[in-house]
Amino acid sequence: MPNHRPLRVVKQITTSFQKEQCRCYSAPVDSAIPSNKVKYVPTSGTYPKGFRVSATHVGVKPSNTSKPDLAFIASDIPAAGTAVFTMNRFQAAPVQVSRDILNSRHGAGIRSVIINSGCANAVTGKGGLEDARAMARTASSMFDNQSGNDDSVPNSVVMSTGVIGQRLPISKIINNIGTAYANLDNSHEAWLNTAKAICTTDTFPKLLSTTFTLPGPAHKGVEYRMAGMTKGAGMIHPKMGTLLGVVCTDAPITPNALRALLQTAMQATFNRISIDGDTSTNDTLAMLANGAAASADTPSIQPKDEACEHFLPILKSFLYRLSDLVVRDGEGATKFVEVRVRNALTVLDALSIASSISRSPLVKTALYGKDANWGRILCAIGYSQLESPESINPATTNVSFIPADNSASKDEGVLKLLVNGEPELVDEERAARLLEDEDLIIDIDLGVGEQAESYRFCDFSHEYVTINGDYRT
Amino acid sequence: MPNHRPLRVVKQITTSFQKEQCRCYSAPVDSAIPSNKVKYVPTSGTYPKGFRVSATHVGVKPSNTSKPDLAFIASDIPAAGTAVFTMNRFQAAPVQVSRDILNSRHGAGIRSVIINSGCANAVTGKGGLEDARAMARTASSMFDNQSGNDDSVPNSVVMSTGVIGQRLPISKIINNIGTAYANLDNSHEAWLNTAKAICTTDTFPKLLSTTFTLPGPAHKGVEYRMAGMTKGAGMIHPKMGTLLGVVCTDAPITPNALRALLQTAMQATFNRISIDGDTSTNDTLAMLANGAAASADTPSIQPKDEACEHFLPILKSFLYRLSDLVVRDGEGATKFVEVRVRNALTVLDALSIASSISRSPLVKTALYGKDANWGRILCAIGYSQLESPESINPATTNVSFIPADNSASKDEGVLKLLVNGEPELVDEERAARLLEDEDLIIDIDLGVGEQAESYRFCDFSHEYVTINGDYRT
Repeated sequence: MPNHRPLRVVKQITTSFQKEQCRCYSAPVDSAIPSNKVKYVPTSGTYPKGFRVSATHVGVKPSNTSKPDLAFIASDIPAAGTAVFTMNRFQAAPVQVSRDILNSRHGAGIRSVIINSGCANAVTGKGGLEDARAMARTASSMFDNQSGNDDSVPNSVVMSTGVIGQRLPISKIINNIGTAYANLDNSHEAWLNTAKAICTTDTFPKLLSTTFTLPGPAHKGVEYRMAGMTKGAGMIHPKMGTLLGVVCTDAPITPNALRALLQTAMQATFNRISIDGDTSTNDTLAMLANGAAASADTPSIQPKDEACEHFLPILKSFLYRLSDLVVRDGEGATKFVEVRVRNALTVLDALSIASSISRSPLVKTALYGKDANWGRILCAIGYSQLESPESINPATTNVSFIPADNSASKDEGVLKLLVNGEPELVDEERAARLLEDEDLIIDIDLGVGEQAESYRFCDFSHEYVTINGDYRT
Repeated sequence: MPNHRPLRVVKQITTSFQKEQCRCYSAPVDSAIPSNKVKYVPTSGTYPKGFRVSATHVGVKPSNTSKPDLAFIASDIPAAGTAVFTMNRFQAAPVQVSRDILNSRHGAGIRSVIINSGCANAVTGKGGLEDARAMARTASSMFDNQSGNDDSVPNSVVMSTGVIGQRLPISKIINNIGTAYANLDNSHEAWLNTAKAICTTDTFPKLLSTTFTLPGPAHKGVEYRMAGMTKGAGMIHPKMGTLLGVVCTDAPITPNALRALLQTAMQATFNRISIDGDTSTNDTLAMLANGAAASADTPSIQPKDEACEHFLPILKSFLYRLSDLVVRDGEGATKFVEVRVRNALTVLDALSIASSISRSPLVKTALYGKDANWGRILCAIGYSQLESPESINPATTNVSFIPADNSASKDEGVLKLLVNGEPELVDEERAARLLEDEDLIIDIDLGVGEQAESYRFCDFSHEYVTINGDYRT
C-alpha cells in the first residue's frame, strides 16, 4: 500500500494529556529513499549517445559535508539547446544568464548544463549575475579548446536551486568544475548520482530514460534515446516554466524545432502540476539534442516536418511521466491527485478551476485527512477567477471521485458526489476506501461547454509545514 | 508573551527513533479559551438599545450535546438592514434567501438575524433553499403579530456556517426558534453567549461594542451604541463579503445610507484579511440600525449627509477591529501579520501583491517557523497577477520587517531586508527576535508609483493541517 511514507512518520500516538488527537511526525533524518518511493527510482537506463554526466560535492551549504551538489550534464559534440523559464518577475540570476546565452547563440553549439543545489542565486543583485556568468564561463572553458570554439558567449546553460536571497560560494563552485568535467561518465550510476545532485527537499532522484524511432528513410534502423532528470519538491505552480529539469536526446534536431517542441510539450505536462501554488524564481526546463545517434549525413529534424510531428507525442509522454515524479515527491505529499475539469466554456476557465482546486489549502488538507469533503472542492470551483461567469452553472455542475486504479478490485467504478448541483447520498465507507489509496482522480463536469483541462497535484500535510517551517535552519 | 497557545500544544519532544525533529501537537480537546486569547474577549460592553439576543442549543451536529449553536439577534422595533455577501459562485442557500429578503424589503422593516453553526446549508440544492426559507419564516413569525406585519416577505436575515454539502436538521432548528425568542436578553452575558453560538473552529468568541456621537442639532446629547460579532476561522479570503458577521446600532439610519456605509466600510476592513485563501460559500456580513437611541422625531441618517460622513470612519474603525479578531483566531494561527504594499502603480496591483503574499504557503510556513526567509516574500511578489508588469521593478523593490510594537524595547526600528533590489546583510539575530513576537509588519516599497494597500493575515501551522484534515470527523 503506497499511502504511507515509513521514513517520514505520520502516526497516531496516545498520551495521557493530549487524548487521541495527538500525532507524532518527523522531518527526514537521513537521505535514504522512502520505501514506498523506491519503485520510482530506475535501476538501469538507456542513455543518449554522446552525453556524459557527473555529480560532485562542493558544499554549497556549509552544513553539507558529503552530498554531491554540483551536477554537470555535457555533450561530447555541440548540441542544439533550448529552455523554458519561470514567469516570476523576480527571475534568478541563472535564469537571466541562461536566457541570454541561449538567445545569443540562437540555441546552437551548446555543450553543457551546469547546476548547483543548496542556493538559488535568486534576488542576489548584480553580484549574483556575475556569479551565474562565472559558472557558465567556467563550464564553457572546459570545452573551448577541443571544439575550437573561441567566441565570447558561453556554451553552457546554468541553473541553481535552493534558498533565495543568499549569494553563491562562487569560488568553491568554480574550483570544482574541473573535477566535475574530469568525472563525466555515461554509466547509469553517473546519471542517477547527477539526478541526486540537483535535489533539495526531494526524497528521491527523478530520472527517466526511453528509446524511440523516427519515420523516414534517413532515420531507418536508428534507435534514438532520451533521458531526463528533474527536481521538486516545493515552490511549484505553473507559469510557463516550472522547477528545474534537463532532457537530453541523441536525435538530430535543429534549434528552431527543438524550441517549438519543448514549448508545446511542456504545456500539458510540466505546466499542469502544482505542489503549493508558489511559482519559483528559478524554474528552468532545458533540453539538449546532439544528434550523436544519427549518421553525419542525417538531416536534422526541422519544425513541422514528419519526424518533428512524430517526435512531439513522444516528448509529451516523456515530460508527462517526468513531471508526474515531481508531484509524487511534493513536499510532505501523501496523495497524488489528478483533477479533470470537463465541459467548460473555455480552456482558460477549465484551467483556472483546475488550478483553484489544486491550490486550495482546504481541499489539500481534506485529502491528507482522507476526508471526502467535496464541499471544499465546490467552494474552490466557486471562487475561481473566470473569463466568463457562465462557465459555472451550479445547476449543471457534477463532481465525482474516480479510482485511479480503475481495476477489478475497484469495480464499483465512479463515485458520484454531486449530480447537476444536487448532492448525492454518498456511501461514506466507499468514499473512505477510495481515499485510502495514494492515487485519486477528481472529475468535474461543468456541463456548459466542450473544453477540458487537467492538473496533477498533491495534498498538504503536517510534514509540508515541518519542512517549510524549518527549511533554512 | 502572546506567541504560544498553551491549550493547543505545539512543542518539541524527543524520542529515540525520531531525533529532534519530532514534535507533538494536538487539536483542542475542549472549548476553553486559550490563555493568550482571553485578552480579546470583553468582560463587559455597551450594547445598542432596542436589541436583544440569545444563544440556544439545538444540536445541529449530532455530536454537539450541549454547546449553543443557534444565535438570534433581534430588534424590538423594525430596523433598517443590509448585508454584503460572498462572491463565490456556489452561494449557500441562506445567502440566496437573505439577499432576496433584503432586496424585496428594500432593506426596511428587518427584525432579526437568525444563525446556526454546525452546518453551512451550502450546495444543498432545492431542499436547502426550502430549509433556509423555513428558518427565515419561522424567525419572522415571532414578530409578525406584534408589529402587525402581515406581508409575505420574511423580516429575518438567515445565516448558516459549518460543513458544506450536508442538509440542515431543519425540524430541530425550527422547533427551537420559539425558545430562542423567549430567551432574548440584552445583558453582556447574552451577547457573549450569542457570539459563542456562531463559532465553529474558533477558539474564542469575537464580540465588540462601542459608543459614539453624531454631529448636528438632532443628535445633540445622544450617545449612540454599536455592537458586532463575527466568526472565523477558516475558508477566509476576500471577495467582497467575507465570513459571518452581524453589526447592530441604535442610531437612526435609512436603508440606502446603511447599505452605502457598510459596502464602503467593509472594503478596507473585512475585505482585507486572509486566513487560507479560500473564499467561502456562506460569507455574509449584515448590519441592522434600529434608531432606538434617538427620539421619534430625529431624522434618519441619509446617504452623504453630515452625520453619514461622520459615521463612516466610526464604522470603518469598528469593522477594522472586528476583522482583526478573525485573523487573531485564524485556524491554527500563531502569528498576526500586516503586509503593507506601498508606492505601487495601481491600487489593484498593490492589492494583488498583498493578497499573493498573504496566501503563499511558503511565506506562511516560514512565519510559523519564525524564519526570516524574505526570499519567499519576494517570490510571492514576483508571481502576483498584475494589471501592469511595470508595477514590479526588481531594481526599485524594498522589503523590510517592522515591529508591530514599535516601542522603546524595539528601538532598533525598521529591519531592512532588501534595498532597491539588493539584499541587505541581515542581522539574523535581530530578525529572529522580531519573529518571536506574535505581531509583525511586512513593508513592501515598490518604488514605482503612489498607491498603497494592506492585508492582515496569519501563518500556516501544523495545527491548521490537523484542524482541516480532521474537521468533518
